[in-house]
Amino acid sequence: MADYIEPRLLKGFRDFLPNAEIVRRSLIENIENTFKSFGFVPIDTPAMEYAEILLGKGGGETEKQIYRFKDNGERDVALRFDLTVPFARFIALHQNELTFPFKRYHIGKVWRGENTQRGRYREFTQCDFDIIGSNSPASDFEILFLIHSALQNLGLDINIHVNHRGLFNRFLSHIGQIEKSVDILRTVDKLSKIGKDETYKNLCGISGDVNAQKILEFIGAKGSFNEVLDCITKLSGGVCAESQRLSMLYQFMIDVVPSSNKEPFVLAPSITRGLDYYTGVVFETFLNDMPEIGSICSGGRYDNLAGLYSKNTSIDASISGVGSSIGLDRLLAALESLNKLPPSNKCSAAITCIDIEKSGQYQALAAKLRQEGITCEVFLDAAGNAEKQLVKQFMLAEKKGIPYVIIPGVNPLKDNITLREIATRQNKELTLNEVLSILPRSFTKK
Amino acid sequence: MADYIEPRLLKGFRDFLPNAEIVRRSLIENIENTFKSFGFVPIDTPAMEYAEILLGKGGGETEKQIYRFKDNGERDVALRFDLTVPFARFIALHQNELTFPFKRYHIGKVWRGENTQRGRYREFTQCDFDIIGSNSPASDFEILFLIHSALQNLGLDINIHVNHRGLFNRFLSHIGQIEKSVDILRTVDKLSKIGKDETYKNLCGISGDVNAQKILEFIGAKGSFNEVLDCITKLSGGVCAESQRLSMLYQFMIDVVPSSNKEPFVLAPSITRGLDYYTGVVFETFLNDMPEIGSICSGGRYDNLAGLYSKNTSIDASISGVGSSIGLDRLLAALESLNKLPPSNKCSAAITCIDIEKSGQYQALAAKLRQEGITCEVFLDAAGNAEKQLVKQFMLAEKKGIPYVIIPGVNPLKDNITLREIATRQNKELTLNEVLSILPRSFTKK
Repeated sequence: MADYIEPRLLKGFRDFLPNAEIVRRSLIENIENTFKSFGFVPIDTPAMEYAEILLGKGGGETEKQIYRFKDNGERDVALRFDLTVPFARFIALHQNELTFPFKRYHIGKVWRGENTQRGRYREFTQCDFDIIGSNSPASDFEILFLIHSALQNLGLDINIHVNHRGLFNRFLSHIGQIEKSVDILRTVDKLSKIGKDETYKNLCGISGDVNAQKILEFIGAKGSFNEVLDCITKLSGGVCAESQRLSMLYQFMIDVVPSSNKEPFVLAPSITRGLDYYTGVVFETFLNDMPEIGSICSGGRYDNLAGLYSKNTSIDASISGVGSSIGLDRLLAALESLNKLPPSNKCSAAITCIDIEKSGQYQALAAKLRQEGITCEVFLDAAGNAEKQLVKQFMLAEKKGIPYVIIPGVNPLKDNITLREIATRQNKELTLNEVLSILPRSFTKK
Repeated sequence: MADYIEPRLLKGFRDFLPNAEIVRRSLIENIENTFKSFGFVPIDTPAMEYAEILLGKGGGETEKQIYRFKDNGERDVALRFDLTVPFARFIALHQNELTFPFKRYHIGKVWRGENTQRGRYREFTQCDFDIIGSNSPASDFEILFLIHSALQNLGLDINIHVNHRGLFNRFLSHIGQIEKSVDILRTVDKLSKIGKDETYKNLCGISGDVNAQKILEFIGAKGSFNEVLDCITKLSGGVCAESQRLSMLYQFMIDVVPSSNKEPFVLAPSITRGLDYYTGVVFETFLNDMPEIGSICSGGRYDNLAGLYSKNTSIDASISGVGSSIGLDRLLAALESLNKLPPSNKCSAAITCIDIEKSGQYQALAAKLRQEGITCEVFLDAAGNAEKQLVKQFMLAEKKGIPYVIIPGVNPLKDNITLREIATRQNKELTLNEVLSILPRSFTKK
């Protein structure tokens, strides 16, 4: 039996102390309120599943990073490393219990044994939202508009870089390079990292210099949304279903964004989301005040999400969807830098403890404040003479960031109250009603 | 590479579908609002820690049930099986960053490889709240009052069975049986399961029939709070610090509960919380309308929570605390049976999709509703003739439990709106302002 165990955390894992956790929860609550206002509903899935299910079709990185082990019943299990694979399994398992189109969000922790030297965490929170069972351009747009609304509700000025993976494929077919699409995608995806010249050199190796030039022309198209659309439509052989869909999305955006505002969508043909499973629209979201941190919300349209877990292929075929994921950690860091952290529920007042025997009455007084929507802490310890005790308790309130201290009278529920404002160090003798009119509300009265 | 993987869950693990997850989140939000109104702050800790830390002093059941494995770096790790042990480690690691008394809550998932035949889950949510660093009776009371307030805010009528583990020990010392306290506690703890006669027989085996009789008299004391307190105080050798603390808690309760109400505290000397680490006040909470489901919130006072993880024993000595844990699953089941589930944020209206080209305008209309605090879903698919489409969309709204359907005019943002009430199947032509005045608000306008 141990007598002392050193308190320590696993590398890549974090505690959240109150100030950090309050902010994190406020941020999630704020985003969740936007999801709810759109009629999106939450789901949850287990942290642990059969490894077979989570690994799915397998893949190098996933298999290296996943936490996989044998449970006490010798089952081969693993911790979820994203919320997409569990969602695919969820859809396959419950499709008869759900109403489609199904609009859901899922906020939960995931675990990856990543190399922490890259500043990554091994436990982090993902925030996914998807519409499943509709192939309508209206559902592509709803996801884009939801991203825009959620981030606008956080006071952020963003633009969303949009592209269509299908249009890129059509272009590759048009220039006879579709069979090399995996290699081309892998190369194009590195454009922002390795630069145009290096990308050109790599593309020449794959497709020859004429095609490399065309590919660079496609992914490098610049201008307004419609100018870029015109350009890449021509390069792909003319108007097609994919270019028409992009055109509709642009029209939808014009319809919702006041014409005085900067357009929030940019058509960016270099965005392909690499080797991901996307088949239609793809997008990445950047902060106008902080583009250098990269995309804070990415996603796209995919086909047949639940296919791997479904026997009945005729049903699955209809389960295509469009979805996105907010990078909460990155967003939180950005909000902090931009000084735009959402307001958090802070305690408005503390009631001092002068006579421990009156602790019940102090709580009764606090209950009156709480009923009015005022967050109120009751201090619990009194010792020594009343004056020294008060000074100690003022300091405690200041340390905790509580703006007002309530010093009850001899009869806490009937006598006047001394209200001390910590910032000004001023005391005022007031009635309870006067106190109620001064203290800031922290939550909505029930 | 697999072509089909059967979608299934591990035994003891659950998916939460939207209706269940909405209710679960509303319940947590409701409880959390009470915590916040008391000035309690949230923390979080990792799901995974060094096994050494989570196992602590070890113990049969924990070691059998914990999910423990080697990670990719051959570290001996485990999933947390409660929130108490991580909290002890948290306090030891961060004591210099925290302000004491520290009032925190922690709501999070924990994992135990329990025998699922007993109807238990292997993944479930715990909801713990504690005050650390105060030995004041006011802090014991605050936890009791917080339990009372949180459950009252859920519309529940409860009583809290209180006892003092220290008074029980003093009683055992008084009758010369303190050295047998572990065996006695283990036996007493089974009273409600095995009955009085069997308990007596077992106690006789441990302490002889005279002492067994006295122990039964102590744990079986009945009457009002003060009557029971008088009885067990006498049996313990007279007034002492422990009996005085119970007496104060009773006075505090009288101060906060209107005299017309049934007293919410019962002094119940048979409650000892078994072999747990409690040293002072202990308590269990029962629903008056459903006592048979057992305690929905239990806890007590403990000494030196973080001692195992602290080298500097002079500091630790001050970190005693009092805390409690709400059994969310049990509470949820009870609220469902009693028809008292908290109201959940339901979607008030759906906007029909008649002309897919107008999807942007439908979203702009929805944004106007959302700005007024109305949760509004936009339907995304239109095909075939408008009339059949509308019937389909009315059915979809009904299936989703959405009470109103908005059928926009040809110019969705300018023309009058047809509002259909699903329950009455009646349509009305209205202006946007009239629609805004009718639709129920789902959330507070920003």
